[in-house]
Amino acid sequence: MIKVDLTTAEKFITRTSFEQTWEACAAAHAKLMEGGAPGEEYLGWVTLPENYDREEFARIIATAQKIKSDSQVLVVVGIGGSYLGTRAIIELLQGQNHNLTQKDRPEIYFVGNSLSSNAFYELKTIIGQRDFSINVVSKSGSTTEPAVIFRLLRELAEQRYGADAHKRIYATTDAEKGALHQMALEEGYEMFTVPDDVGGRYSVLTSVGLLPLAVAGVDIENIMNGAARAMKELALGSPDNPAWQYAAARNLLYGQGKKIELLAVYEPGARFFCEWFKQLFGESEGKHGRGIFPSSIEYTADLHSIGQYLQDGERHLFETVLDFGTSENHVYVPYDTKNADALNYLSGKNLDFIKEQAFRAAVKAHADGGVPSVIVEIPGLKAESVGVLVYFFEFACGLSAYMLGVNPFDQPGVEAYKKEMFRRLGKPGHTG
Amino acid sequence: MIKVDLTTAEKFITRTSFEQTWEACAAAHAKLMEGGAPGEEYLGWVTLPENYDREEFARIIATAQKIKSDSQVLVVVGIGGSYLGTRAIIELLQGQNHNLTQKDRPEIYFVGNSLSSNAFYELKTIIGQRDFSINVVSKSGSTTEPAVIFRLLRELAEQRYGADAHKRIYATTDAEKGALHQMALEEGYEMFTVPDDVGGRYSVLTSVGLLPLAVAGVDIENIMNGAARAMKELALGSPDNPAWQYAAARNLLYGQGKKIELLAVYEPGARFFCEWFKQLFGESEGKHGRGIFPSSIEYTADLHSIGQYLQDGERHLFETVLDFGTSENHVYVPYDTKNADALNYLSGKNLDFIKEQAFRAAVKAHADGGVPSVIVEIPGLKAESVGVLVYFFEFACGLSAYMLGVNPFDQPGVEAYKKEMFRRLGKPGHTG
Repeated sequence: MIKVDLTTAEKFITRTSFEQTWEACAAAHAKLMEGGAPGEEYLGWVTLPENYDREEFARIIATAQKIKSDSQVLVVVGIGGSYLGTRAIIELLQGQNHNLTQKDRPEIYFVGNSLSSNAFYELKTIIGQRDFSINVVSKSGSTTEPAVIFRLLRELAEQRYGADAHKRIYATTDAEKGALHQMALEEGYEMFTVPDDVGGRYSVLTSVGLLPLAVAGVDIENIMNGAARAMKELALGSPDNPAWQYAAARNLLYGQGKKIELLAVYEPGARFFCEWFKQLFGESEGKHGRGIFPSSIEYTADLHSIGQYLQDGERHLFETVLDFGTSENHVYVPYDTKNADALNYLSGKNLDFIKEQAFRAAVKAHADGGVPSVIVEIPGLKAESVGVLVYFFEFACGLSAYMLGVNPFDQPGVEAYKKEMFRRLGKPGHTG
Repeated sequence: MIKVDLTTAEKFITRTSFEQTWEACAAAHAKLMEGGAPGEEYLGWVTLPENYDREEFARIIATAQKIKSDSQVLVVVGIGGSYLGTRAIIELLQGQNHNLTQKDRPEIYFVGNSLSSNAFYELKTIIGQRDFSINVVSKSGSTTEPAVIFRLLRELAEQRYGADAHKRIYATTDAEKGALHQMALEEGYEMFTVPDDVGGRYSVLTSVGLLPLAVAGVDIENIMNGAARAMKELALGSPDNPAWQYAAARNLLYGQGKKIELLAVYEPGARFFCEWFKQLFGESEGKHGRGIFPSSIEYTADLHSIGQYLQDGERHLFETVLDFGTSENHVYVPYDTKNADALNYLSGKNLDFIKEQAFRAAVKAHADGGVPSVIVEIPGLKAESVGVLVYFFEFACGLSAYMLGVNPFDQPGVEAYKKEMFRRLGKPGHTG
């Protein structure tokens, strides 16, 4: 399943300090498995891969089929956890240009995550005269960015489809209350549930992610199978648990002043997976003046940009490298009789092989330069392994935050700018 | 032109410490204007906006016209500074989905910046049976990633176009030597010059960037006009120089333990501009165990993700916010008689206005939480202002690195992984 390779990290962390951490791992593990700690009301994701609502799952598959049959564009409206995981998985499995390569399904765009007029104009240009559907994702329905963009898109749908507009709007929201739930009831939008016990950044394996993923043609059954496998394996309460190893390593490195973690990836399609990771860890751990700052780096491109900093700048960082192993696409370097580029020494070699050497070389060079690498190995870039990976990071994040002594499931700091923004916007009740 | 607003940064930096920094600014300024310091052989970018080769510029315009007339896809092969700035400017001006919205010009893809087999397969799928051209960008022609991908693409072009393949290949490389220069001579590729006195990360305003930008339909004349304006204004040797203010502020904040700088943007299209910024500063300053770690944040999306960390995590960061002012696209929130989302208090308001309030609110909330913001104001998101912005950051980066006491124009750390990779790959002469 998942293996955490600590070979180079162990050059920076003694075996004894690992030994001393397992007790803290065990305590954090118990908090995730049994509750009893701050945030316990948001542990629904722990058993979700087994307990998810099969009836709703079947409805998601059927709805995705309907959207595929009547729409050329699906617009997903959501911010933070309401879109990052979904976009992450689609790009990871289908590449950053998925809307140009996946011709047999609707194009999928994620909006409501900015207040850019340019981005909204771009979306209208892209939709043009084509048929579209809207999936609005918001637990409350009152978050400003998606609510504003949804109001604009609703107007567009009503102009285009008149009284039938509601048949193209799908609301993923609270099962019982909130502005969006109420609106969906009144207007007759089909509804999907954001469970009460799963927070936004942990919600990609609920209908939040599953509906747009199914429209994208991602095999959501295998995603859930992967997550279920991870759930079983990570339930293990011992130092053999790879989530324990990862959580222990990052907390120990943090204790040594490694205050920045770079998620390092070798696939251009993994860019948004890094964004999802940054939200997951940054929002879970970054509180009370504590927490590793999560960042990311895309190899080998960035070996030629901030790679310099990694090698030779301040020594306050470590990297966590995602290793998907070999690809199913094989690309071999051709032989060239002229050999003007002097690359014949690589002819007949697979791109994967060359990538592997670049990867191992970077790990060694960085370790020599004082930057430890933790390597997370997942076999293959396919739906099931992505399900494993998502659950792995969710579980490791919960562990790691409890070990740090913070509640992994709240985000008190997000309120500060909202409060000030509402005052400035003159929102009723916020003008004081 | 450009204004640097230090109002909130000044809550963290005393006026006296600013005063004490101007002398160092003046010394660094002299190094950029007059040379005499390490790296002086790479100062060509300083006067480039006035001195650039007009004959080549005209040839770039003509070549772009030819590519537009005979190609549906332009593949740009390059890594690091050979693609980041170009992609940054295209996405900034035309949005992240430019290949879907700009129908009157070839689609443009950037490759050779990874060793991903998946990414290469994706590109072949995208090209399909359509006509394509290749712009290979490499000073030496021997950098592994672009050289390997170029070899693969050359094969594709030769299969498709036979003896005419060379008419669709454009080499941006050294004017006199190197593997790519030699190959271009022998094969008859049209050539464009990477000047000797401009390093990779400073090269976007040379033919490196200008040719693909022209194909994209970006007004490269106005880009250069903007850069020329910036060049004149930033030549000013006084504390009124906005580049001095920015360079001073970031060095003073760094001295206070603010070891991470987040470039904060409000446009989804600015994602790659942030990547360009990260290379520029990370590679220029991150050496000898020193340097601010450059990262980025995309608002308002990230106010709902690592915004939590910013507000409430470790206090080792500051943000530099890009403020483009109001957009040329106006989007007004419609009135809704039902008001189920309770947003009527915003009806009639422009998205730009709401964004402005979110932006000011975030700056205040972050300052209250211990995170200073430096605000860089540029009027409007158009070619000329982008030219200004590029030159501004280049100049400020040179200043800032000299103030830090490092050579802004070398990248010794990038060699470490290459050396190890060549050994592993068995490159002739590197097996020791």
